[in-house]
Amino acid sequence: MAEPAPTRSALGAVAVQSFAPGSPRVIVAGATGFAGALAAHLLWRHPRFELAAVTGRSEVGRRLDDLYPRYRVPMTIEQLDLEAFGRLDAAIVAYPHAAAAPTVADLRERGARVVDLSADLRLSSPATYEQWYGKHPRPDLLAEAVYGLTELHRDRIAGAGIVANPGCYPTASLLGLAPLARAGLIADVVIDAKQGISGAGRAFDDTTHLSMAGENILPYKVAEHRHTPEIEEQLAPLRAAGGAIDQVAVLFQAHLVPLDQGELADCYVTTTRAVDDAELGELFAAAYANEPFVEVVSAPPGTREVLQTNFCRVFAKADPHSGKVVVLSAIDNLWKGTSSQAVQNLNVMFGLAETEGLT
Amino acid sequence: MAEPAPTRSALGAVAVQSFAPGSPRVIVAGATGFAGALAAHLLWRHPRFELAAVTGRSEVGRRLDDLYPRYRVPMTIEQLDLEAFGRLDAAIVAYPHAAAAPTVADLRERGARVVDLSADLRLSSPATYEQWYGKHPRPDLLAEAVYGLTELHRDRIAGAGIVANPGCYPTASLLGLAPLARAGLIADVVIDAKQGISGAGRAFDDTTHLSMAGENILPYKVAEHRHTPEIEEQLAPLRAAGGAIDQVAVLFQAHLVPLDQGELADCYVTTTRAVDDAELGELFAAAYANEPFVEVVSAPPGTREVLQTNFCRVFAKADPHSGKVVVLSAIDNLWKGTSSQAVQNLNVMFGLAETEGLT
Amino acid sequence: MAEPAPTRSALGAVAVQSFAPGSPRVIVAGATGFAGALAAHLLWRHPRFELAAVTGRSEVGRRLDDLYPRYRVPMTIEQLDLEAFGRLDAAIVAYPHAAAAPTVADLRERGARVVDLSADLRLSSPATYEQWYGKHPRPDLLAEAVYGLTELHRDRIAGAGIVANPGCYPTASLLGLAPLARAGLIADVVIDAKQGISGAGRAFDDTTHLSMAGENILPYKVAEHRHTPEIEEQLAPLRAAGGAIDQVAVLFQAHLVPLDQGELADCYVTTTRAVDDAELGELFAAAYANEPFVEVVSAPPGTREVLQTNFCRVFAKADPHSGKVVVLSAIDNLWKGTSSQAVQNLNVMFGLAETEGLT
Amino acid sequence: MAEPAPTRSALGAVAVQSFAPGSPRVIVAGATGFAGALAAHLLWRHPRFELAAVTGRSEVGRRLDDLYPRYRVPMTIEQLDLEAFGRLDAAIVAYPHAAAAPTVADLRERGARVVDLSADLRLSSPATYEQWYGKHPRPDLLAEAVYGLTELHRDRIAGAGIVANPGCYPTASLLGLAPLARAGLIADVVIDAKQGISGAGRAFDDTTHLSMAGENILPYKVAEHRHTPEIEEQLAPLRAAGGAIDQVAVLFQAHLVPLDQGELADCYVTTTRAVDDAELGELFAAAYANEPFVEVVSAPPGTREVLQTNFCRVFAKADPHSGKVVVLSAIDNLWKGTSSQAVQNLNVMFGLAETEGLT
Repeated sequence: MAEPAPTRSALGAVAVQSFAPGSPRVIVAGATGFAGALAAHLLWRHPRFELAAVTGRSEVGRRLDDLYPRYRVPMTIEQLDLEAFGRLDAAIVAYPHAAAAPTVADLRERGARVVDLSADLRLSSPATYEQWYGKHPRPDLLAEAVYGLTELHRDRIAGAGIVANPGCYPTASLLGLAPLARAGLIADVVIDAKQGISGAGRAFDDTTHLSMAGENILPYKVAEHRHTPEIEEQLAPLRAAGGAIDQVAVLFQAHLVPLDQGELADCYVTTTRAVDDAELGELFAAAYANEPFVEVVSAPPGTREVLQTNFCRVFAKADPHSGKVVVLSAIDNLWKGTSSQAVQNLNVMFGLAETEGLT
Repeated sequence: MAEPAPTRSALGAVAVQSFAPGSPRVIVAGATGFAGALAAHLLWRHPRFELAAVTGRSEVGRRLDDLYPRYRVPMTIEQLDLEAFGRLDAAIVAYPHAAAAPTVADLRERGARVVDLSADLRLSSPATYEQWYGKHPRPDLLAEAVYGLTELHRDRIAGAGIVANPGCYPTASLLGLAPLARAGLIADVVIDAKQGISGAGRAFDDTTHLSMAGENILPYKVAEHRHTPEIEEQLAPLRAAGGAIDQVAVLFQAHLVPLDQGELADCYVTTTRAVDDAELGELFAAAYANEPFVEVVSAPPGTREVLQTNFCRVFAKADPHSGKVVVLSAIDNLWKGTSSQAVQNLNVMFGLAETEGLT
Repeated sequence: MAEPAPTRSALGAVAVQSFAPGSPRVIVAGATGFAGALAAHLLWRHPRFELAAVTGRSEVGRRLDDLYPRYRVPMTIEQLDLEAFGRLDAAIVAYPHAAAAPTVADLRERGARVVDLSADLRLSSPATYEQWYGKHPRPDLLAEAVYGLTELHRDRIAGAGIVANPGCYPTASLLGLAPLARAGLIADVVIDAKQGISGAGRAFDDTTHLSMAGENILPYKVAEHRHTPEIEEQLAPLRAAGGAIDQVAVLFQAHLVPLDQGELADCYVTTTRAVDDAELGELFAAAYANEPFVEVVSAPPGTREVLQTNFCRVFAKADPHSGKVVVLSAIDNLWKGTSSQAVQNLNVMFGLAETEGLT
Repeated sequence: MAEPAPTRSALGAVAVQSFAPGSPRVIVAGATGFAGALAAHLLWRHPRFELAAVTGRSEVGRRLDDLYPRYRVPMTIEQLDLEAFGRLDAAIVAYPHAAAAPTVADLRERGARVVDLSADLRLSSPATYEQWYGKHPRPDLLAEAVYGLTELHRDRIAGAGIVANPGCYPTASLLGLAPLARAGLIADVVIDAKQGISGAGRAFDDTTHLSMAGENILPYKVAEHRHTPEIEEQLAPLRAAGGAIDQVAVLFQAHLVPLDQGELADCYVTTTRAVDDAELGELFAAAYANEPFVEVVSAPPGTREVLQTNFCRVFAKADPHSGKVVVLSAIDNLWKGTSSQAVQNLNVMFGLAETEGLT
């Protein structure tokens, strides 16, 4: 049972959530990890959602603002007991792969709409999923799931029962590549992505210990990154619309660098025909003119520019020397790459202003 | 005049340099920057060179171990006065571009052999130099200069009067690409390189301030990096030897990430024919079997693995999905990328074991 | 003249400030430094203040959201020309010592109420000021200035024309010590404080360069810190109220540690009589029961717990072994230590809820 | 069985250890942690010790240079099987508390001399040990153990069978306080110490994860630090020699700050009589004039100055305002604070130059 609206913690005065009456009731399932905790933080301070409960598979009974003091969510972590939560309008599920889909199914059965942060429902083909993650736990849910890159699928997200929130790498990559894909300009692409240690999650190992992750640049999963099919599947229809026929085989490479939050995707595109900076400028300006969270910038974007925001900054430049186009796409991997994009999707699903609670 | 062998500093007991009698006398010109200071440190502890003086264009009269306590070089920074230094066998010049070449010339006139850390003498064509750095200060020196990537030009370095030490980005890139180039396998290449903040030097600005460089991934100089011609010029003869005829147009992209020392070059190669991991393994093993400082590794190398060493770790893998080859090359940008490679070159120039003073 | 309300930047859609009609018009003088930029950010998003202009002594004509992208204040940096700004109700002055006081005077002449972030008006005695900062630029202003540690002087701040915002070290120290001082318990105190590199400001030197500030713990100004008199002057009346007669001579020691924002003051107090944890608990609970921004916590607070907030977390514990009391006080040096406390003070000065725009 | 002298690893050419013939054979028990791995590194490159084996309680069969690439020790981690190692002259034991003492006993039975890095044998009283660590595993060993702060107990270490290597906090603290203690000047002392994350060891938890340890200053164990009795027990005889009669009750406070290696102890001393900087200067100069690894410096030492060295830098200053003396003591917690001090002790135990292999 969600604890009664807290008015006071041991730590001092606690603001009661102030959301509009009749606001949708939302839970965060899996609030003990980085992504779930941030989602809870964003919903707690959101003026149009009621954060009804936060659950965990561990740390049950502990206060979330004890586990993540900065986020200041004065709620107690509960076990996931859908019976106990009363009416639920929506949920953000922040569970690991394979564990997520069954929970999504339970939530759907009770009528809640779900944004799932895992990879379980991102790929349309169970076979592809199995290649990277093991046997698919609930292939029956795939038909209902909409891929949640808001800028690409806003219309379908609005009516969706299940939104499969993109991986952070595909988010940055696809926002950088979409304008080129739609124009049929991508003949070939290499994506070199770098992100901070929060991308490895609350896992404790050699890749997250400050004495090993610090003073290190760590490439991983060479020529075998599970985000490749996700990117390719999303690029395909865009490219088809642009007249490109063949499948493009993306080469994606990931790296961990010693910061907390931040992600940059460098996309190196061999184009189907020559393009110059003027054309690129028009293409990207047109693509993102009305996007509240995508900024086309005129200088290479550092990730610090979008730290702790839902913004994506995109920069495109032709390299006449090599004949290629370079697109840089910077996000905060935990925000636009994960949790704030989930809230952006919830805003769309419930007919709110897309920027509500995010600026 | 170099100060008399210090036996005692205000800081406590100071070891006298212990080098073999008759060792070459070497100075470091420009020891106040990161590269020069590290070169002085390496020479001070080197068993076969006498560090005769350290000079600076600023900080004259200050102790080098006051400016860089860790390096523990108990010498006073002097003005560059070649008359005063007595016999000089060699020098490492760590001056900025354009300022370096005239100093190299002065040193040559006095008979000293020089390793120049600047870009002044790396490119064979003054016209190309001018495109990136401004008018060439001393084109007459170019004929004498040997490009100092030890692994490529060891034989010519041995007899050289001037060695143009490579940039750190070309060092990592070329060591990663050379085996493929020599086999005529490079049809096209994109290089995405990342390095720590020491790569920006002792400059004080937004890119080096911890409160701005921290928690940031910063791409810079998109489609216009001055290291591109240096890499292309070095690749050309290797490729020619491998039967490749056309020039390859390299696309090189640089980034600063929040660590001190470390550099990773990811080379994405479109090959002239299909290659698999077995062939790559043989190619790289053969190329570096006898190299004391290049290690072909079987897992993606983090830069921490080569921190504060002269080693380069290289990893190559075929990506059947995209048909490309990924080569990762990790170095310490200040060591193998700059100062320890300069000492490696001095070792070669003076007929010493190449690893002397470096392991 | 402040630029017309921006509706669109080169970077994408820009939200217009949305403040209540009739809100006080405020400027930030000196918005190019860390403190002024954050103050501008907080005022831009504040629902009850109109940010009328941001000024700089450099960078005039540049957009503030170009200089500090994260803060997303889409205004152009102007020269300080009070004639041009129209009606001004208030200003936050973020100038260096000595430069601040004359600007405060100009603003007062035009009727604006001022929160001054510098040290110029913190000490009541010009002679003490001169000892640490040089000749006092405007001693005539001292009589009007109220020391702006909100929790101590809320009542006087409410009616003040000039608020001298405390230094970040005194803020943390005084919030930790006030309950003990008021109870007459402080016989002697040592304060060991540590803060992130942002505390050094946007200065570029050895103490801020990531390659020198990183991997370092740097003590500075031993036995000569200028914040000592500020702390002692504030403690005196509190102690007097608690029955302590003599002046207490504070020993304050500062350190820089390699993070961006965060500050911890460890206060080691020799007490005038024995106290135990129960009494400490009551004392601190009573002192801060109604404070919206001071949290008495039951475990040692890490600075990350208050990162980017106006909160101060205080922890007190008796050490029976030594007979002393340890008080730990954690803040964000740029927020509660500087800019958000300035906004907290503005809230008080203009009769708003103290937490407005800060939670 | 120790593996045969490796001549070649999968990673490339591996230098054979080159130690003088007849050198003592040493093992490192527990080489998988930070302290043991560094000890192995230092012994591997030491010219006068043969590193006979490295053992682990986990990771058996793995190469140490795979686990810690930078340290470049090309040996395989073995189980601790004293029968298998042949003649052993010495061992460094890097086991956790309680696990260490029984291993020390086994080693002593086989005639090996031991430097123990744990706390098991640092305190003379089993009762005090039990208060902080639980029941003492082998109180019978205490009589033989010599406390291994080399600068204090060099003579006894020379002949010792067991050396209890000090904790890193006591090392820094005692080197800072010893000159004052010997002069009978310490009436009272507060020690505020800060260290990098390596001090938490290879443990994986909230205090070591970069996303939680980064951007944090974390105080821990307030008024209950287990290093207090170690410091007090060592100070007592020094103070007694200086004519001080009463026990001094040390207040010690520890902190973690976001770097890898480095430690600073700030010692705030109330003196038994007035002292000025001149007297302090003479006192410290005299105390450390002949110490190869302690440097009395004239400016506050940053820990970066001693990074990756066995040096301790000490700075002392009187504060006439408070009447106290401030002593700052900076070390690398993993080097002088742990592993390099262990090697320094081995040098003393085997009659070598104390600086052998450490400069």
